[in-house]
Order: sequence, then structure tokens, then C-alpha cells
Amino acid sequence: MNNHLNQDTICAIATANGIGAIGIIRISGEKSIEIAQKCFKGEDLTKVSSHTVHYGFIVEKSQESSAKNEDLDINHLSINIEEIKPDELIDEVMVAVYKAPKTFTAEDSVEISYHGSPHIAKKILEVLVKNGARLAKAGEFTMRAFMNGRIDLAQAESIADLIASENEASRKVALNQLKGGISNEISLLRGELLNFTSFLELELDFGEEDVEFADRTALNALLDKIEHKLNSLIESFQYGNAVKNGVEVAIIGKPNAGKSTLLNALLKEERAIVSDIAGTTRDTIEEVLHIKGNAFRFIDTAGLRETADEIEKIGVAKAKEKIASAKILLYLYDEFDSSAAEVISFIKEFERKDLKIILLHNKIDLNGGYFENELDTKIKNALFPDVTNTIIGISAKNAESVEAIKTELSHYIEDLKDTESNVIVTNQRHYEALKNSLSAINLVKETIASQISSELLAFELRNALENLGEISGEFTNDEVLGNIFSKFCIGK
Amino acid sequence: MNNHLNQDTICAIATANGIGAIGIIRISGEKSIEIAQKCFKGEDLTKVSSHTVHYGFIVEKSQESSAKNEDLDINHLSINIEEIKPDELIDEVMVAVYKAPKTFTAEDSVEISYHGSPHIAKKILEVLVKNGARLAKAGEFTMRAFMNGRIDLAQAESIADLIASENEASRKVALNQLKGGISNEISLLRGELLNFTSFLELELDFGEEDVEFADRTALNALLDKIEHKLNSLIESFQYGNAVKNGVEVAIIGKPNAGKSTLLNALLKEERAIVSDIAGTTRDTIEEVLHIKGNAFRFIDTAGLRETADEIEKIGVAKAKEKIASAKILLYLYDEFDSSAAEVISFIKEFERKDLKIILLHNKIDLNGGYFENELDTKIKNALFPDVTNTIIGISAKNAESVEAIKTELSHYIEDLKDTESNVIVTNQRHYEALKNSLSAINLVKETIASQISSELLAFELRNALENLGEISGEFTNDEVLGNIFSKFCIGK
Repeated sequence: MNNHLNQDTICAIATANGIGAIGIIRISGEKSIEIAQKCFKGEDLTKVSSHTVHYGFIVEKSQESSAKNEDLDINHLSINIEEIKPDELIDEVMVAVYKAPKTFTAEDSVEISYHGSPHIAKKILEVLVKNGARLAKAGEFTMRAFMNGRIDLAQAESIADLIASENEASRKVALNQLKGGISNEISLLRGELLNFTSFLELELDFGEEDVEFADRTALNALLDKIEHKLNSLIESFQYGNAVKNGVEVAIIGKPNAGKSTLLNALLKEERAIVSDIAGTTRDTIEEVLHIKGNAFRFIDTAGLRETADEIEKIGVAKAKEKIASAKILLYLYDEFDSSAAEVISFIKEFERKDLKIILLHNKIDLNGGYFENELDTKIKNALFPDVTNTIIGISAKNAESVEAIKTELSHYIEDLKDTESNVIVTNQRHYEALKNSLSAINLVKETIASQISSELLAFELRNALENLGEISGEFTNDEVLGNIFSKFCIGK
Repeated sequence: MNNHLNQDTICAIATANGIGAIGIIRISGEKSIEIAQKCFKGEDLTKVSSHTVHYGFIVEKSQESSAKNEDLDINHLSINIEEIKPDELIDEVMVAVYKAPKTFTAEDSVEISYHGSPHIAKKILEVLVKNGARLAKAGEFTMRAFMNGRIDLAQAESIADLIASENEASRKVALNQLKGGISNEISLLRGELLNFTSFLELELDFGEEDVEFADRTALNALLDKIEHKLNSLIESFQYGNAVKNGVEVAIIGKPNAGKSTLLNALLKEERAIVSDIAGTTRDTIEEVLHIKGNAFRFIDTAGLRETADEIEKIGVAKAKEKIASAKILLYLYDEFDSSAAEVISFIKEFERKDLKIILLHNKIDLNGGYFENELDTKIKNALFPDVTNTIIGISAKNAESVEAIKTELSHYIEDLKDTESNVIVTNQRHYEALKNSLSAINLVKETIASQISSELLAFELRNALENLGEISGEFTNDEVLGNIFSKFCIGK
């Protein structure tokens, strides 16, 4: 791995941007304790035990005589040396010292807890840099945890997922993955496959002696097992994706069918709950509904309302595009309307077998709560002849049967959840790697079947092992890593 | 003090709002370690040493048999008990344990460092509340530090100032105050005054025996010393206020005198620097200039440009109002203009002796860098006959002499800084309390001079002691405290 990277001692703000009661600056690397000590007035940090916290001050110490030899180095930094006054106090802090290897990065680490002003943070970072640390790049702390073998790549990715988790379901899946979920599932099978490969390579070494160390039947059985596991993991992605990114729901129906009223009724309670959580924006509040910890994102279908003039048609095209990504369609009606057929027809264009369509017979309050099955049957036959639909009678205005709709939405997730795999794949990269692994495994099977040569079989096996190793990061390259970690926030 | 307050164990997010690599939840109170332990899977926190950090998981533990007796209590909380699953993992965390009295609040405290998602924070707080903590009010941690005698009121206030500090000067003053600055200055003198008062009250106890324990001459000398100290502290507020809130500067001149160009030239470098700091908004960037760690706020004088029609005049009135609060006026000109007299005339209305006016002779590039003294003299005589002005020849367009202007602005602060007092008063409440103390001290002196009665003198002395004690919080009431701490952020 990239050893150059690990020689530096890095520092960054680890807490959220902005003003808080306290903020945390994190330092990691061989010299982190030494550097922290140079900026600290309090106990001698180089002499304290690991995992202890110490009160003191961050100071800008006057340059000692030895510093003069380093003048050239100091000049490399964009800090005005003339502005530095001897032993200037920066802030009153608590400093936690962590000694390798039982730390987040598996390196010596220090965490400085300061009075949470961004200005103070900047000053402390300046002093740390002046004393030999450098500013960390995005994701560099987690990258080191991976590089130093403390966590695998899938676990590293789960940390980003945990931080970004906005609901219970995504938090749980990310935490499970942090605990090694997907990697454990695969590494055992990968280990067995590696054994076979070693035996096969032993055969090749023996050359023409025609011994067979690797039992082809057992190998085939193992490959079947791996294929089965891969398939169930791949299948879990549909659920995992729903958990991580939410389920997109479109409400459609003719103008004045009550779409906005329904959306408001669905989100009413949600708004009150969500507004309590810091960091949720108003945009999110208006469009996302959480049911049992899962997010349902309502697609804006405003553009579908009118199709009369040319300009409006562009809006319709856009709305169609959005609806094409919906997983659930709520069709709202209170009378039979020929234009409805038009509105629906394009949905069929996408031929989405996985699309769940729920029929909502609105305005039942006008009929004293009764909804006529005749209309429902007519609608169903005309618009959705091939689909099994749930039909719910509702009153959007009176928020009647809102719970029934929520239950129905919830069923969608529960049906997906009913996956064979204990581990849920949520990460697009893992999903791709799993599919590649499956192809590789199939190639191995074909090679065995065709009995071409042990050399080719060994080659294909190596290829399958690499693909399987990509998820946990056993096989990877700098580009892939850079890509993954650059998406992290700075300080993680 | 309010003991009821201190019986609860409180918890809150201590880091800034939003998503970060890590977030900190702080718990304080008698039961904080016990409550943390109930939510923690890892080492037994009740058995670890103070100031140590421990790895583990925050969990939602299944309710033990004893919990059933508490069912009624649990129902008081707005948590749906049915949703709780046994021993559910919430997050992987680091937990720091701090034992009283060497903690921020002087109570047992715990800090939980979690993966910085607001959703996770909410879950952890829920679990803590379920186990007996309650959510902290704004400033409640700092209030406890004060209530428990770890810091005085002025120090508590300085913590809020530190967190809000946006520049070097305000950070330094706040830190100095946190270290006890103003309180130390006053408490010594207050102690001496308390001695005198005790002697005087002893006299009163002896009644008619006409003994004099309290030496009136020495008392007068002490009062003079206190008066002198109070005066120098009060004087320092002008500088302290400039440091804390910045100095308001107005650029005025006729249309096209080059006001915007000058502002841009002044702020040019600043923009590049400030944009690096997280949390600074674009608004601030456009109007604030930092020179040697001090903030200069440029007032928008756009409304002054035209006075022709009636509607515009409202704008002018507003601009006048703003200029009335300016401490420094930059008057920009390149020719003599009779309308300038109008623009200036209203400034004199305010009769501000402390207003610093700097004359900027613009567009000297048109004269090859030369600026004619004749015009300057004419301007000066016509507009500012009674003031000693600095005149600087500049070219706003070429950013020429921008440094000279900055130096001149800087002089304003340095002149204020030249105060007798080592401690700088920045807080409006302290300023008011100091002025009240000064009045009280003067009343004592008058009482001595009038030789009315020892009873009255004792009364006035007690009054002076109370006033002096208000700054450090030795004398205070719930309303004042509530007022101070409610302005803090939650989690501090």
C-alpha cells in the first residue's frame, strides 16, 4: 500500500461545520502525540496512558533555539511567522490521547476538544501545522484505518453510510455492515475457494504427472454454494437500496382528484416529528414520509396536470421521466374519467414488473363512507387489467384511511425485506462487485464443464477470487480507493 | 441556589448542528455514569477511572424485570415502548467518563462520541432519556458549572463569548476573561471593602459606646482606589466593545467618488482569506474587514447617493441613522463639490467628539500620483474646520494606498487599546454593573463626607458590595441568571 501517505501526521476538524458548544480536532499519525505536546500547556502528553483525557491550554509556544534550524521548513508553510507571539494561549481544551494500535486509525491519535468556534478551530489547526502536522484530505482518517488493516473496505464505506443515515433502517444496515456483515459472508467462501485454487496450482506445478489434488466435484459444489450466496446478496440490494435511498412514490390522478390533499394528510404527522431534528431542511420535510424507519420519497407529479398546449407537454415529459423511477404508484380517483386512461397509458410503456400500483378511491366521505365497487372494477379493468391491485377507499380531506395507505406502503418494504440473505447490500459498488463475482464464478463453472485446461481454470479462479476480494478491499487499486474516500467528509 | 435543578441528570448534543465525522453528546449530573452504563455495551463504566475513554456500543437494552415496576414512569415519556427491541445496537461509540469535581460542571459527567449523524444523535438521546436523563436547557451545563462554584458568572459569560469569537482580538479578550480577568480585578478590592464593612457593623453592635473600629481615612483611601479601578475598567469598554462587536466604518462621498471601488479594494484580500473558514456567510464576507485581528464593519451608505425625490429621502434618513452609529468616517473626494457640504452637514448634527474622520483624496492616478494640497485645504476648511484630519491620497481603482488606509483604521483601535486597565470589559452587563458600582461607591463617599450616621454608611456599603458582587455573580437572582444562560446554545 501507499506507505508515503502513512508517514505524515494529519489533522482536521471532525465535528460538523458551524458554531457548537464544543468542537473536536483529530490528529493521527506517528508524531501525533509529540506534535500535540508541542502545542499543549498541561500534563506531559508523551508520558500519559492511552485512552486518557487531560485538561490544559493549546498554546502557540515561542520557537526554541532548535527551531532556527528549521526556518527553511517553516517558510514552506503559508503562515506569517512574524505574527506569532511567544507562548500565546489559543484556547482552554480537553485533550484525549490514544496510543496505537487500539485507535480508530490504528495509529497514535489525539483528539482536542475546544470551545466550538470555527475561528478557534482554524487557529488550533494553524498551530498544529506549524508544529509538523498537515491538514487531512477527505476520508483520510478512515482510509488509514483501512490501510492499516483495522477495518476492511466495506466497513470503511459503512462508516460514511452511518454518518449519512437519516432513518432507522439505514442506520441499522450501516451498523451491521460496520460490524463486518457483508465481508464475513463472503470471506469464508472466498477462503475455501482460495484453498481449491492453491491445490489446483499445486497440480500445475506437478506438470505432466496427472495428479488431481483439487477435487472437481467438491469444487463444483463450492461454486454452487458461492453462486447461491452471491445471488441472495444481489437480490437483497433491492431492499438495501430502498432502505438507503428511500422508496420513490408517485401520486397520480386527474386534476382535483385530491393529490395535494392526500400528500398533506400523509405528511401531516411527519412534519411535526421531523422538524424536531436538527439539520433536516424544509425541502426534505415536504417530500419524505418515514414509516417504521423507512423513507418514502414523494415525486413531484405537478407537471402531469395539463397536456393541452405545447409548452406544457415538456412538463409532462419530465413528469413521465420521474414517474419512470417510481417504485410505488398511488392512483387517486373518484369518478371514471377517459383522460385517466391517457395519464396511465404511458406508465405501461416502462413495462415495470416491479411497480406496485395502489388504487385509492377518494372522496368516500361524500357517500357516507361507502365506496362503490362498480367504479373500482371499471377503473381496474380499463386501466390495470393485468395487475393485482390493492383498493383502498379514502377521504383525503378528512385524512380517513391514511393509516391503511401507510400500512400498504410499508408492505412494499416488508416484501422486499423477505430476502434469504441476513446481510443487506446497500452499496452500489458492492452490488456491481457481486455481479462481477457472479459472472466470474459462472466462467469458472463453464471452464470446468468444458474441461479445456487446468491452466485456464486456475486463471479463471484467480479472476473470481479478485472479484470476490474487491468488496472487502483485499484486491483494489489507488484509483478505486481515491474514488471511495474522496466522497467522505474531511475529518473522517 | 436552585438545588432542584442540580438533582436531574441532563444530556444534550454539544457539537454543531448538522452532519460531521463525529458528534458529541454530553451528560452531566449525579447519575450520569450510571445512566450511561445502562445504555452501554463495553467495559463497566461505573468501575473505570475518571478521565478515561472507552470503546463500545450504545444499546437499547431490553427492560429487565425491575423495569416492570417502572411501567408507569415509562408511560410518562413519549416513547413507544412497543417499538423497542431487546438489546438493539444504536451506534459504535467512544465514551469518556469524568468524575466530580474535576469536570466542566463539577458534577459526574460522560461524553459520548458517536458517528456524527443527527439521526443517531436523536436515537442516543432517546435512550438516555428513557434511562433517566432529561434533555438539557440552553446553557444549563455552564449554569451548573457556575452554580457548583467552579467558575464565576463573568467566566461563564466568557465561554459564550469564546464560542462566538470570530476574530483574534475577541478570542483573546474572552479567553483572558475565562481565566478570571475581571473577577480577579474586582474581588480583591471587594474583599477589602467587606472587611471595612464588617468592622463598621461591629461598631454598630457596640451601639452607644462610641468606639470606631473602621478607620474612616483608610476607608476613604480604599474607596478612591476602587473608584479609580472602576473608572479604568469602564473606560476599557470602548475598546472592549470595538473588539467584540467590531468598529463601524462609513464611506461617504458624492456619487461616483469611487466608494464601491474603494470598498472592493479594501476587502479584496479579505475575501480570499475569509472564504476558507467554515461558517462565514457571504453577507459577512462582503462587509467586514479584519485588520490585525480586529473587525471593521462597513455600513451600507447606498441610500445617501441621491436626495432628489421624496421617496429617496426615506433612504437618506435611514442611511443617516446608520452613519450616526459609525465610529470612523472615510470621506472620499476628487473635486470640490457644493453638494458634499450637504452630505456632511448632518454628520455634525450628532456632535460626536469620538468620531474619527479620515479624508481620502481619490483618483490621484489621474494626476500621476500627485494630489493638490489646495483642494484638500479647501475641503478641510469648508467641511471639517474644527477637526484634525488625516489626509491620504489614494487611487481606489489601482488599490493604491489601501495599506495606508488600513494602518489608519488600525490606529483607531490602538488608540482605544491604550487603556490603563489590564482587563478589558467587553460585556454590556459588566459595563452596566461597573457603572452602578461606581455610583454606589460615590454614594458611600458622600455618606462619609456628610457624617450623617454609621447605620446609613453601613447600608450604602452593603449596597456597594452587592453591586460589585454582581459581576462575578456573588449577588444575583434567578431572573438575571435565566437571562444570561438562555442566550447560550443548547449543549453548553
